Amino acid sequence: MNLNKLLKPKTIAIIGASDKAGFSGDTIRNYMKFSRNLDQLYFVNPKRDEVFGKKCYHSILDIECDIDLAIICTPQKTVIPLLREAAEKNCGGAVVFASGYGEVGAEGKAKQQELVEEADKLGIAVMGPNCAGFANFIDGIFAFAFLVEERDRKGNIGMISQSGQIVLAGLDSPNMGFSHVISSGNSCNVKVEDYLDFLVEDDDTKVVAAYIEGITKPAKLIETFRKAALKKKPIVILKTGRSSKSQELAASHTGSLSGSDKVLRAIFKRYGIVEAGDLEELCSLAAAFSWMRELPAGRRTVFMNVSGGEAGVSADLSEEYGIPLAEYKPETKAYLKSLLPEYGSVNNPFDMTAGIGYNTPVMVDAIKAISADENVDMICVAYTITPEIWDDTIAHMVEAVSIARQDKSIKPIVWLPFIEHTRHQGSADILKASGTPLLASGKYGCTAIRKILDFASFEYEDGGCAIPEKTAKTGSKGLSEYDSLCYLEKHGVVIPAQAVAATKEEAVEVAKTLGYPLSVKIHSAQIQHKSDVGGVKLNIKNDEELCQAFDIIMDNCKKNAPGAELSGVLLKPMLKTGAEMIIGINNDKDFGPTIMVGMGGVFVELFKDVQLAPVPLTRNQAVKMIEQLKAYPLLNGYRGNPVYDKDALADLLVSIAAMAAEGKDEIKELDINPVFVSEDGVAIADALLILKEEC
Amino acid sequence: MNLNKLLKPKTIAIIGASDKAGFSGDTIRNYMKFSRNLDQLYFVNPKRDEVFGKKCYHSILDIECDIDLAIICTPQKTVIPLLREAAEKNCGGAVVFASGYGEVGAEGKAKQQELVEEADKLGIAVMGPNCAGFANFIDGIFAFAFLVEERDRKGNIGMISQSGQIVLAGLDSPNMGFSHVISSGNSCNVKVEDYLDFLVEDDDTKVVAAYIEGITKPAKLIETFRKAALKKKPIVILKTGRSSKSQELAASHTGSLSGSDKVLRAIFKRYGIVEAGDLEELCSLAAAFSWMRELPAGRRTVFMNVSGGEAGVSADLSEEYGIPLAEYKPETKAYLKSLLPEYGSVNNPFDMTAGIGYNTPVMVDAIKAISADENVDMICVAYTITPEIWDDTIAHMVEAVSIARQDKSIKPIVWLPFIEHTRHQGSADILKASGTPLLASGKYGCTAIRKILDFASFEYEDGGCAIPEKTAKTGSKGLSEYDSLCYLEKHGVVIPAQAVAATKEEAVEVAKTLGYPLSVKIHSAQIQHKSDVGGVKLNIKNDEELCQAFDIIMDNCKKNAPGAELSGVLLKPMLKTGAEMIIGINNDKDFGPTIMVGMGGVFVELFKDVQLAPVPLTRNQAVKMIEQLKAYPLLNGYRGNPVYDKDALADLLVSIAAMAAEGKDEIKELDINPVFVSEDGVAIADALLILKEEC
Repeated sequence: MNLNKLLKPKTIAIIGASDKAGFSGDTIRNYMKFSRNLDQLYFVNPKRDEVFGKKCYHSILDIECDIDLAIICTPQKTVIPLLREAAEKNCGGAVVFASGYGEVGAEGKAKQQELVEEADKLGIAVMGPNCAGFANFIDGIFAFAFLVEERDRKGNIGMISQSGQIVLAGLDSPNMGFSHVISSGNSCNVKVEDYLDFLVEDDDTKVVAAYIEGITKPAKLIETFRKAALKKKPIVILKTGRSSKSQELAASHTGSLSGSDKVLRAIFKRYGIVEAGDLEELCSLAAAFSWMRELPAGRRTVFMNVSGGEAGVSADLSEEYGIPLAEYKPETKAYLKSLLPEYGSVNNPFDMTAGIGYNTPVMVDAIKAISADENVDMICVAYTITPEIWDDTIAHMVEAVSIARQDKSIKPIVWLPFIEHTRHQGSADILKASGTPLLASGKYGCTAIRKILDFASFEYEDGGCAIPEKTAKTGSKGLSEYDSLCYLEKHGVVIPAQAVAATKEEAVEVAKTLGYPLSVKIHSAQIQHKSDVGGVKLNIKNDEELCQAFDIIMDNCKKNAPGAELSGVLLKPMLKTGAEMIIGINNDKDFGPTIMVGMGGVFVELFKDVQLAPVPLTRNQAVKMIEQLKAYPLLNGYRGNPVYDKDALADLLVSIAAMAAEGKDEIKELDINPVFVSEDGVAIADALLILKEEC
Repeated sequence: MNLNKLLKPKTIAIIGASDKAGFSGDTIRNYMKFSRNLDQLYFVNPKRDEVFGKKCYHSILDIECDIDLAIICTPQKTVIPLLREAAEKNCGGAVVFASGYGEVGAEGKAKQQELVEEADKLGIAVMGPNCAGFANFIDGIFAFAFLVEERDRKGNIGMISQSGQIVLAGLDSPNMGFSHVISSGNSCNVKVEDYLDFLVEDDDTKVVAAYIEGITKPAKLIETFRKAALKKKPIVILKTGRSSKSQELAASHTGSLSGSDKVLRAIFKRYGIVEAGDLEELCSLAAAFSWMRELPAGRRTVFMNVSGGEAGVSADLSEEYGIPLAEYKPETKAYLKSLLPEYGSVNNPFDMTAGIGYNTPVMVDAIKAISADENVDMICVAYTITPEIWDDTIAHMVEAVSIARQDKSIKPIVWLPFIEHTRHQGSADILKASGTPLLASGKYGCTAIRKILDFASFEYEDGGCAIPEKTAKTGSKGLSEYDSLCYLEKHGVVIPAQAVAATKEEAVEVAKTLGYPLSVKIHSAQIQHKSDVGGVKLNIKNDEELCQAFDIIMDNCKKNAPGAELSGVLLKPMLKTGAEMIIGINNDKDFGPTIMVGMGGVFVELFKDVQLAPVPLTRNQAVKMIEQLKAYPLLNGYRGNPVYDKDALADLLVSIAAMAAEGKDEIKELDINPVFVSEDGVAIADALLILKEEC
């Protein structure tokens, strides 16, 4: 979908133009205040000849030229007729502020559907309905209906939000400068994903900031994320829906239906999307990326403080947020010591004392020395900036950063205030000019540092994705353990030896090949919880025990699972145990199969210690999933246990993920529980596969 | 220690008075700018006759009257002679700005010791050295050496900090108003604990805010905390030292040596101390308590938003920070619905829409209805306040809160901005006047709400404490399992039946009383890890097995623990297992014995899932420790397991804690690992007690 006529129009009509407060008057006020060019702007209102002293047409059809964009400020019932007229003027984009659509029940949803169909037919990209519009700060186009404080906001952040209020928060945020802001509202025919794609492609946009409530075009989203990852363009996303309450609210707000929130977060992780936890994070993270001249080459950070107390606070915060503290080389340490008064000492966090902090040239030298240290990747100058500069130290330090950064080889610097940030515009401006982000305070700032380090060190692996076809298959069919494992084997997954036997005699015959000791389980597609019905016997050592086991299992199952078709028993050599892991596949309706790994039992159930990722997996991605488990130490030689074969586990994950990607339109669910990981490899002990089926 | 002459002096001398920048000139500038009364202020400098146009004495001895407080701005070497002179004027307090003491190595420590001894001898309470001084906003006394922006800061927060910079942060923080600010620096003879006590006792102080690096008077601290808990006066503390790096920095900053950080945090928890994670939290939490007219009676909170997006963000934040969302009564819901436009719906978080948010009287009605709902304890109005009020909504909402709060029965309201807070002083002033805290933004604000709710619902139980005597006993002696258990039994702890036997024959005899099956373990004070040397045999079923076990154990131990004195074997009936817990006692050098409980194995080792508390314990405290374990569900009927006897476990904790409190000067360490908790009670399976001993 080409959004150029919508977002970068050459000619614009405001329909329903008036000077009264409300969508129309406020949009026009914004337009006239912020835009440098009103020549291509036309007003339309059948009842007015002039608005704000400018000619007003009675109909869009009266305008002499074609109109790229129609900003429709009139009520719901007028929208479709107006779109039809606009289409006659070759209109390709429209902003619809009116509400009463998808967000308000069945009738509204029907009206929205009607609007979508008409817009698609007319070839008009509609922003909204139920939105606050957009502002394009690059070309000076203002279709934004909420009045804002007057100041220059041009910059390189492209912001898109399903909530107009949240766009307003961005516009209020003093450190954010924008290429585009877009309040997409119900996102009826132009979807959030389309705007994201526009911003990722847009060369005026360095950073994308987004507030989203729901996803409707998963394949488009993935493609956009992939483009951004390849360009290393940061996308910062605030996605509500971590709590069930916020999922509920999103449905009533813009009619968005969230898919699985966890799956979306796994997608974010795969593509290096920077997730913001709330509005302050969204705004301050986007601003930080926007101001940074370059990303750090590694993670090792030095904190420069001017007080022992604040150095202590910095130390605790750095540990809490996982910001690795750099170790100086001895020569750096010696040089810094030479800059300090006698009572000072060189640490990281570094209490520079008044000796350095109150003295611009000395601080410049200190920054240069720290930056030159090959053990250092980034510097964080940590000091509160007051609304008025009463404390000269601030001025000295800001100046020192600015002077040091004139040398383009100086490593990235960020500035962390301890209490409220951005309170002195002059200092902020100097830092911005030097490519030094002024972070939000304390915990927010350290969260930002951590996320900047994560983004900078993220290496995208272009391993493809597995978005399923939209399918009519809403039914499902569970396979027996034997059939599940056969399916796995057929699709490239290594499984332990197994065989089925319909009779005792067959069992004894099969045992000759498999070798004792054996596990014996009921073989039936209808029995999924085999132990519960007495369908499992373990550690069978000889023919006699085997025959007994066969009889007992059959008797138990006849009794306890009367409806089930019993096809005999499944025989497997007893497996070497070790750690009991579980591996699962779930096929998300939007993003396709995801693979889950965790350690069985309380680790998964109580501590929710699982890793989730979309399929397929590269080997490296599989290794990271394993290493990021909290229970990982248990695999790695815990308390005298052997080091288990994590490589084999990673290989297994890769092969299962590949199978799931290939089977994206067929596999509904897979539950491998447990798989044993020992020092000698992995062995799947049980598996349940559920395939999609026509209903 | 009486601090009145130091902190509330009637006559003050500034020694080394001058008009130059630095301690003296800046202190005088602050004094003259902020104080309403200069009549009792005297300047002293042997080289000056006048400073800032005011008479300057050549010596403190020349002043006509007694001097309560000497503010000493001169270098280190002059301090002791000046204190001696001051003492002749009946001086009872001194501020010493000079550094070069305890914070800079052995020589400095010696100088500090000399200063302490002299001050104690002269009866002068010394603030500092290496400090920034104090300001008493109630009486207008300013002995503070860092220049600050000019504005009224009088209020009801008493702040004490070992870092002058952090006091400065408080003074910079726009929502904080102070009774006293104290930069105590090295806290040489007047300790942090003394200042805390002063502020807890002080009627002008409603909230205490403290930054501390180390504790030196634990008994005083406990007594102060106890007083505050009984008065329900909030103490907000920022204590660095969560990371080892910050512990290291504190040592070099003010020479503070931290005891165990975890123990101090357990003490905080016991007394309802509000812990701040960083500076922004310290400042904004103290400000919130300072502004609140009353504490909420319960935890159930309603969020009032003016946007679906922000309501979603509020929902996620409330879940993340554990803020329980109130459920409206049906009549409240119906009434709120009647205030909304058709498209609105009543939720919590509540998107009020323009219908309520843009209309002051309607919002007042909404607040009143929500406040009147008996299911609601607190209201959080969540909206960003911009530096200039361009968006009328802010003004409407602030006004509505202010009008509603004129009714004193309206429940507590807090205001949560989504991005930077306190940016429009007029709005802040209105909220403050109505007793409505303007919180820090987003996550900080929600942290504050959570901590306010925790503080409000905290019920102090005055169960006493067990600070040990300072002791010369630096040695220790480990007891055998048998002797450890006998010690426990003697001190009121219920233990399972046990007996020792020196010979096989004795063992067989003893077995008759205990009954099979039995566990048999080596009995030796020198062998602590009995399994490691082959000193344990379990599930012994008869006399024959017992005799065999006896021989094997003796042989193993002779071979594997050649130095140990073998006193025979310890016999116990096999215990009923269940959950394996561990219970420990550690005797902190400052705060005495603490008791720890956790579930054995990976829960303790990998997930650090333990609860720690000072002793003694009330039954209620013991129950809470158990319930706050992450592994608690495992005790409570997990996956078909029986519900284990948590009451018996709580009783056991209470009895062990009582024993530890009584033995605070004798017990060094106790390690009970494991104790079995089953549906039938608890049973200690192994115990190792270490007692203090003369070296």
